[in-house]
Amino acid sequence: MVIVGGGFAGLHAAKALAELPVDVTVVDRSNHHTFQPLLYQVALAVLSPANIAQPIRSILRKHANTQVLMDEGVGIDVAARRVRLRSGAVLEYDYLALATGATHSYFGNDAWAPLAPGLKTIEDAIEIRRRVLLAFELAERQVVERGWHPPLNFVVVGAGPTGVELAGAISDIAQLYMRHDFRHIDPTKSRVLLLDGGPRVLAAYPPDLSAKAEAALARLGVEVYTNTQVTGIGPGWVEAGGKRIDAAVTLWAAGVQASPLGKLLGAPLDRRGCVIVDEWLNPPGLPEVFVLGDLAHLEQDSRQVPGVAQPAMQMGDHVAKMVAADLAHRPRPAFRFFDKGDMATIGRMDAVANVKWPFKGRLSGFPAWMTWLVVHIFFLIGFRSRASVFASWIWTYFTFTRGARLITGDQSLPGWQEHVDSGPAAGSTKAAD
Amino acid sequence: MVIVGGGFAGLHAAKALAELPVDVTVVDRSNHHTFQPLLYQVALAVLSPANIAQPIRSILRKHANTQVLMDEGVGIDVAARRVRLRSGAVLEYDYLALATGATHSYFGNDAWAPLAPGLKTIEDAIEIRRRVLLAFELAERQVVERGWHPPLNFVVVGAGPTGVELAGAISDIAQLYMRHDFRHIDPTKSRVLLLDGGPRVLAAYPPDLSAKAEAALARLGVEVYTNTQVTGIGPGWVEAGGKRIDAAVTLWAAGVQASPLGKLLGAPLDRRGCVIVDEWLNPPGLPEVFVLGDLAHLEQDSRQVPGVAQPAMQMGDHVAKMVAADLAHRPRPAFRFFDKGDMATIGRMDAVANVKWPFKGRLSGFPAWMTWLVVHIFFLIGFRSRASVFASWIWTYFTFTRGARLITGDQSLPGWQEHVDSGPAAGSTKAAD
Repeated sequence: MVIVGGGFAGLHAAKALAELPVDVTVVDRSNHHTFQPLLYQVALAVLSPANIAQPIRSILRKHANTQVLMDEGVGIDVAARRVRLRSGAVLEYDYLALATGATHSYFGNDAWAPLAPGLKTIEDAIEIRRRVLLAFELAERQVVERGWHPPLNFVVVGAGPTGVELAGAISDIAQLYMRHDFRHIDPTKSRVLLLDGGPRVLAAYPPDLSAKAEAALARLGVEVYTNTQVTGIGPGWVEAGGKRIDAAVTLWAAGVQASPLGKLLGAPLDRRGCVIVDEWLNPPGLPEVFVLGDLAHLEQDSRQVPGVAQPAMQMGDHVAKMVAADLAHRPRPAFRFFDKGDMATIGRMDAVANVKWPFKGRLSGFPAWMTWLVVHIFFLIGFRSRASVFASWIWTYFTFTRGARLITGDQSLPGWQEHVDSGPAAGSTKAAD
Repeated sequence: MVIVGGGFAGLHAAKALAELPVDVTVVDRSNHHTFQPLLYQVALAVLSPANIAQPIRSILRKHANTQVLMDEGVGIDVAARRVRLRSGAVLEYDYLALATGATHSYFGNDAWAPLAPGLKTIEDAIEIRRRVLLAFELAERQVVERGWHPPLNFVVVGAGPTGVELAGAISDIAQLYMRHDFRHIDPTKSRVLLLDGGPRVLAAYPPDLSAKAEAALARLGVEVYTNTQVTGIGPGWVEAGGKRIDAAVTLWAAGVQASPLGKLLGAPLDRRGCVIVDEWLNPPGLPEVFVLGDLAHLEQDSRQVPGVAQPAMQMGDHVAKMVAADLAHRPRPAFRFFDKGDMATIGRMDAVANVKWPFKGRLSGFPAWMTWLVVHIFFLIGFRSRASVFASWIWTYFTFTRGARLITGDQSLPGWQEHVDSGPAAGSTKAAD
């Protein structure tokens, strides 16, 4: 059994297969499994990368039937049942599980990528942290040098869960956590703009929860612009709704596309590149190939199963059940996504939750946030992560300090220097005193 | 008062000046103060960067007379009493404290820098972590691809405290922490080589402690080569003692040179670029300029005060006393370094300590390690760092897992692929089975 991808789907498959008489090889291009739902907290300096990322080989250390390779699948020969890796190694398989997930999609505008990073990996989170924290530092020193600074606008494109969580967390850090740290700028006067082409935030949630989320964002001072299509992104600006908006930092949370590995199967794809699978998670005619997680396009009750953590974990677990059925010469059980609901945080101590199990209900405000907190602590891998994340949260929420406010890497922001050189414009901020 | 550099010396000066009627500006090119004595634990994945680095402006948040700028001093006009920063800002000063420390010196061989990184910053530590962890991952996948892998030799150049601590920590991670994580390679068969041009390790310590350190290194399997001059470093190899040694990873702990800022004063320098100062920490003829920490060359009892944390902190504190004396029209007190001793760890639960205060004595083994641990926890800034570092140590030393085994960034090592392409040579390791 070869599993390509060590995210939620791949890791759950590997763990569930540990008890079966199969040899398992897990291939991932990074050495760690990332708990993606908390990546935005790394990006906004609440958590350290190591709090939410563990080496895949440590997680699977005790599974004697499992080996882990840090490598990348680059070729699949479905006839010969072989996967070729970037290093040149070739792995033969009886079963293949493809779980390489999704990446950002800039809808064909690949030039936007360096200007507006998205949030999928630990490296992405560190880069976003660098940009957001650096903007405040540059503004402070710009006032010392010139008496003014370019506007501290943070523009988040896309108002799904990631966009909403990022916008809320940026507002938090500016309004609450850095207000006493600067002498020349007032971080509370920075603006957070959340843009979305659709009519409401959190489009996948019931409309009343979207409305609650918008109200919560408004309380945090986040400016939400729905029905606003982004038509251009440049160094230091975003063009949306026919207007150019200054942006010290632009973040991308608008679109995802499937990992390119899906294409290599030669099976039908949807328009985002996801592999269309049946209820046994197989592409047509390939019963030995399972496609899992964000890479799979599965219809259930005429709706597509969403590309989030829950179905990915369940699909991973289900693969082991199907392999066990094969080994026992029983028919494979069909997969059915059991939806426990969705939730998204909105800044400090606020959230919305559309709970479907163990009870049905819609939560918002502090109760939703507490629910979110308990659920996310529970799903973190390993006692150490749980303890350290819990401790970081207690510390962060009670002391109003953030533990991981590190800027690493270079010290430039796209467009900042050009803005400074062209002199103060409308929207530039004078020195506080 | 302008303080350039937010290390131990600069930060202690800023804190000590908080009670005086002076305006303080602290300039540092990074946004964080780094607790350098524990950097090697970040490099070897025991601690996360945020455990030992705090934003300078958070540390000084409550000092109303202090501002912090993330910027870099690039010019000093001692006549006009002005410091020019990289951003273009110009700061005027009544007093200037220069505390920009030291950086690696490759003794004129600057081409060695990318091949053999040193350890001075958080970025350095992350890069060393990447290289060391990546070597094991590359070896594992190389065996799958080719049935053998290049030798896993880790070469540390320089056997001062940093070199000894790095070598011990690499041995630890290979021998103890990763032994059950791989299926094709045996991490315990990797080699750690510690090279030094001088006759003994820890040359600044009494000879009997050097001997104890060498014995402790030998117990860990570290191969110590003293009187061994490094004459060349290339991708994947080190040339020393007339022989070329394969090196999967080479680390540099051999030489330091002063930050280039010292030169700008126009004052006499020693051969490493340190500014020669008198017992008031002034260069000749510049009573309003203090040079602190590693950048200062101060002779006391005919010996140079060493470039480590203790004198840096004391010099920082002393600056405030001298400024207070000026304000009270009293003569400035002379600085005297009060040496409490030195210590260095050698892997897990072993260390050497040359204690001079509060008692005189030489410790080694577990008692020295416990002393080291208590002292380093005590000097960390902030309750949060102390608690999180303490928790990480407890976890690491009792469970034999390391919390921060993350590889971030690209996936190549200098010389590795060339070695693989040229085929197995003497010293290459066959597959374990």
